Amino acid sequence: MPSAKRDTITALAGGVGASKLLLGLHDVMDPHDLTVIVNTGDDIVLHGLKISPDLDIVTYTLAGIVDEAKGWGFRGETFHALERLAAFGRINWFNLGDRDLATHIHRSAMLAEGKSLSDAAEAIRVALAVKTRILPMCDEPVPTMIDTAEGELHFQEYLVKRRAEPVVRGIRFDGADKVRPANGVLDAIRDADRIVVCPSNPLISIGPILAVPGIREALRARRETVVAVCPIVGGKSLKGPSDKMLAELGYEASAPGVAKLYADFSGTFVIDPTDKKQADRIRDLGIKVEVVPTVMATRAQKRKLAGSLLALKS
Amino acid sequence: MPSAKRDTITALAGGVGASKLLLGLHDVMDPHDLTVIVNTGDDIVLHGLKISPDLDIVTYTLAGIVDEAKGWGFRGETFHALERLAAFGRINWFNLGDRDLATHIHRSAMLAEGKSLSDAAEAIRVALAVKTRILPMCDEPVPTMIDTAEGELHFQEYLVKRRAEPVVRGIRFDGADKVRPANGVLDAIRDADRIVVCPSNPLISIGPILAVPGIREALRARRETVVAVCPIVGGKSLKGPSDKMLAELGYEASAPGVAKLYADFSGTFVIDPTDKKQADRIRDLGIKVEVVPTVMATRAQKRKLAGSLLALKS
Repeated sequence: MPSAKRDTITALAGGVGASKLLLGLHDVMDPHDLTVIVNTGDDIVLHGLKISPDLDIVTYTLAGIVDEAKGWGFRGETFHALERLAAFGRINWFNLGDRDLATHIHRSAMLAEGKSLSDAAEAIRVALAVKTRILPMCDEPVPTMIDTAEGELHFQEYLVKRRAEPVVRGIRFDGADKVRPANGVLDAIRDADRIVVCPSNPLISIGPILAVPGIREALRARRETVVAVCPIVGGKSLKGPSDKMLAELGYEASAPGVAKLYADFSGTFVIDPTDKKQADRIRDLGIKVEVVPTVMATRAQKRKLAGSLLALKS
Repeated sequence: MPSAKRDTITALAGGVGASKLLLGLHDVMDPHDLTVIVNTGDDIVLHGLKISPDLDIVTYTLAGIVDEAKGWGFRGETFHALERLAAFGRINWFNLGDRDLATHIHRSAMLAEGKSLSDAAEAIRVALAVKTRILPMCDEPVPTMIDTAEGELHFQEYLVKRRAEPVVRGIRFDGADKVRPANGVLDAIRDADRIVVCPSNPLISIGPILAVPGIREALRARRETVVAVCPIVGGKSLKGPSDKMLAELGYEASAPGVAKLYADFSGTFVIDPTDKKQADRIRDLGIKVEVVPTVMATRAQKRKLAGSLLALKS
């Protein structure tokens, strides 16, 4: 049930999966009290343009302009520029809509003018009238590189171009050891009444955020207020290739498998009733378990899960 | 009448006005035998993208994809990205269509990769299956700056943003003294059987080309083969603010006024029958005069003027 108390929430988020929960939170609380720390390991420069897929998915979702069927891009989007880019022999496996392109052009122009990725994210969310603060995990590029049987691929090449087909042998967040959290990130973790880890891919959506020096430590210091929503239900990903990647890297593709990855910083773990038999295995890791429906096909389900999180006793 | 002989033609061109004649030439001759040297003084960087309006107008026209009603941009174009750029507070007085944007993105990406403007122009015309060679006047930026009562403006600010309203006090081709003609430009002038100066604005379309060191001298050396088509008919511009700019800068806005600007390098001057009474004043400059209809509203008129030029005895 929605809390009457004005709690501040800081959420760690990837893209499409996270945005479902974020939209629910945005609906049931004052959106000004929500701060989102977003994975930028997926970022890529294409055609000279800086593309930040997860930042844009979160921003477009909260702005109410996202294509809900796909979970990314603008609703009613056209792809005329992309058709022409392809005609020039440029890569076209990464979808760039015409309206979406303006975001990338604006962001790239701001970066070229010496502004930070945080500045660009802030300018974009303000222009789109999003009330929730949206922070990139860091300002510098930390590309997620996937080691596969076909060689090392940029995450977008792995996911979009190769449709997550190659077997994953390892994951590397290139340059993560040399960056620091973006302005506001550590404060948002330190000061929030509740920290929510969204149901995103633990390896390549939450993983990059945790790899930024200082973030995992800051979360550990707030372990009792951290609640993670499991992205695996009944051994399957809610969205994307989490299950496949976990298995290929020797992790268990299950709720306890993910809980183990989060055990050092997450005091509470939310699992779907489907997995309630696994609760004891998670409790054995020293984590409190909440059993709540986590499948969010409808707006009502998003709000309901969000409300449940707000109602948790910390 | 179209010449049966295979003459090579090199044309000096601005944008919309020139493209009418270029399309006519392209129709009545083997387009491989036509080379166009294009003004790049209008070029501008907007939103971090290098925009070359005259190169694109010429290329799109010869590719058969131009919006014929406007004379620039793609036919059936959408402007979704531009609407979003405006929502981000970016300037939107310069029209950038979605398909057109791909050209600017591709060109900018090539330049960022270390390629030249000539390389980009060549890649774009090849991708658009244009058979005619299209050369920028030079590879480096030489922005046309317009000194006005409101201060100095980039040409696009003067023309598009301020709709050519401010009174012009001077014109400057910034950095022209430090550049050299793009690869192939001087050869194209030296080797052509016929050199055509298109009916473009003599001050800000042909003027920048002439300001590139070496080009005017190369034209003078071929004066007997140079034929210029007058862009002023009955004291009015065929297109754009030529008449107004000529008058404001103290030149005569007339066929003889333009002929005077070209007298040193143009052996022949083509005027419309409207201006036939001015022919003697032009001959007094030591220039041969041809009286041929120069108003090109229809494709047939474009072909007819082009055919007349091919039929001229040099």
